[in-house]
Amino acid sequence: MHTLEMLEAHPRDIELDLTRLARAVEVVEDCATVCTQCADACLAEADLAPLVRCIRLDLDCADVCTATARVLVRQTEPDDSLIRPLLDACIAACRSCAEECEHHAHLRHCRICAEVCRACEQTCRDVRDKLL
Amino acid sequence: MHTLEMLEAHPRDIELDLTRLARAVEVVEDCATVCTQCADACLAEADLAPLVRCIRLDLDCADVCTATARVLVRQTEPDDSLIRPLLDACIAACRSCAEECEHHAHLRHCRICAEVCRACEQTCRDVRDKLL
Amino acid sequence: MHTLEMLEAHPRDIELDLTRLARAVEVVEDCATVCTQCADACLAEADLAPLVRCIRLDLDCADVCTATARVLVRQTEPDDSLIRPLLDACIAACRSCAEECEHHAHLRHCRICAEVCRACEQTCRDVRDKLL
Amino acid sequence: MHTLEMLEAHPRDIELDLTRLARAVEVVEDCATVCTQCADACLAEADLAPLVRCIRLDLDCADVCTATARVLVRQTEPDDSLIRPLLDACIAACRSCAEECEHHAHLRHCRICAEVCRACEQTCRDVRDKLL
Repeated sequence: MHTLEMLEAHPRDIELDLTRLARAVEVVEDCATVCTQCADACLAEADLAPLVRCIRLDLDCADVCTATARVLVRQTEPDDSLIRPLLDACIAACRSCAEECEHHAHLRHCRICAEVCRACEQTCRDVRDKLL
Repeated sequence: MHTLEMLEAHPRDIELDLTRLARAVEVVEDCATVCTQCADACLAEADLAPLVRCIRLDLDCADVCTATARVLVRQTEPDDSLIRPLLDACIAACRSCAEECEHHAHLRHCRICAEVCRACEQTCRDVRDKLL
Repeated sequence: MHTLEMLEAHPRDIELDLTRLARAVEVVEDCATVCTQCADACLAEADLAPLVRCIRLDLDCADVCTATARVLVRQTEPDDSLIRPLLDACIAACRSCAEECEHHAHLRHCRICAEVCRACEQTCRDVRDKLL
Repeated sequence: MHTLEMLEAHPRDIELDLTRLARAVEVVEDCATVCTQCADACLAEADLAPLVRCIRLDLDCADVCTATARVLVRQTEPDDSLIRPLLDACIAACRSCAEECEHHAHLRHCRICAEVCRACEQTCRDVRDKLL
């Protein structure tokens, strides 16, 4: 990933810790991909009915994480009044998805997805409370 | 647009006012497109420097609206604990973008974009406070 | 929708028929939303197993249409060498999704989705062959 | 990134080389992020006018790569007739963006972005010609 290298090449003087910011963006993007993959893996399970809520929350979490990563990585004229509630929404999406995936921990894809969502939830909290 | 017709074809018994929900989704999607168009139109202006913040907020607002419309339109196992903060984020994105566009009201695309963002902001508020 | 009004407000002299372009963008966006809704409605059906392929193709078609609409609506320095293959990809996504949905025409959401995908397929063909 | 681990946890028997597939998805996602960052960094440059085309192609490439990564990573009922033209579109988007960024190689973010786009172009070619 070239996220940090690109942040270092940004013409503006960014006042945030670039290493932590780059790492946060990558965690959020990883979560978007893992949620997309978990929805897809659930869809291939033989016993689909108990996974309907999981698929739905995976899709939501993937969409919210994708938007959050894009907004977070932009460093020209960042607007805290928008980034903070978006991080709150991302925290909520990750928490809902993690809670549901934890009910299906016998499925390896749900177990990994739960862990990745919990890590993303914590990362977004850290960005909101310590980085911004 | 077929948003309402599709909501009516949903197998679940949706407890929301479908006409208002369909209209809300379309307002949020219209805002996503108009913000994409405003960023693009700003980029074609001769005097670009004063529009940098506007372009950035247009891009953010487009991304947040796209995610919000997708989450809002899904009616299988909807999760209020995620939709509410996402609506808050969408309200914040629309407000920031509208405020900035209002500074450039001599440009027709910014004037339209400001109006559409204000309408979207109000729609998201109504969904959060009256529809859900 | 304000797509046409925004195209008319663009500072560049756009050589395309703006009414047809605006209409095309709206058809592609409608298709993105309808596919998102069809995946969601399928997920709520009691007999899920026969709909797995449909859900997958709905999700793909929604993602491809979302990207296509964004690229198509931008009129600053448009690049035909990118737009044409993207329209081809959108045509392929709509065709695959329509074919699958047509197998489930007893479900109203699949019937509508098939029609909207066919309309989008034709619209993208028209843009590629007649508008650009 | 957990892309490979999630592919290994997929219930279907995937006939592709999972390590190469996971790597390809991550290259395409990296390209999406780097293009988002290059557009943002260009926007912060003092001399904006020569970068207008670059910003536009960065935005297009980010959107196309985001859709491509999502479609590519899904392994339930994959449809080659859609993935192949989407890879073609991604190759075209990366090539256009790389060519433009190469004209601005004095800017470090454009230099990195050109390299990442060229790598993504080659990766998509390899997936299309050797992996699928």
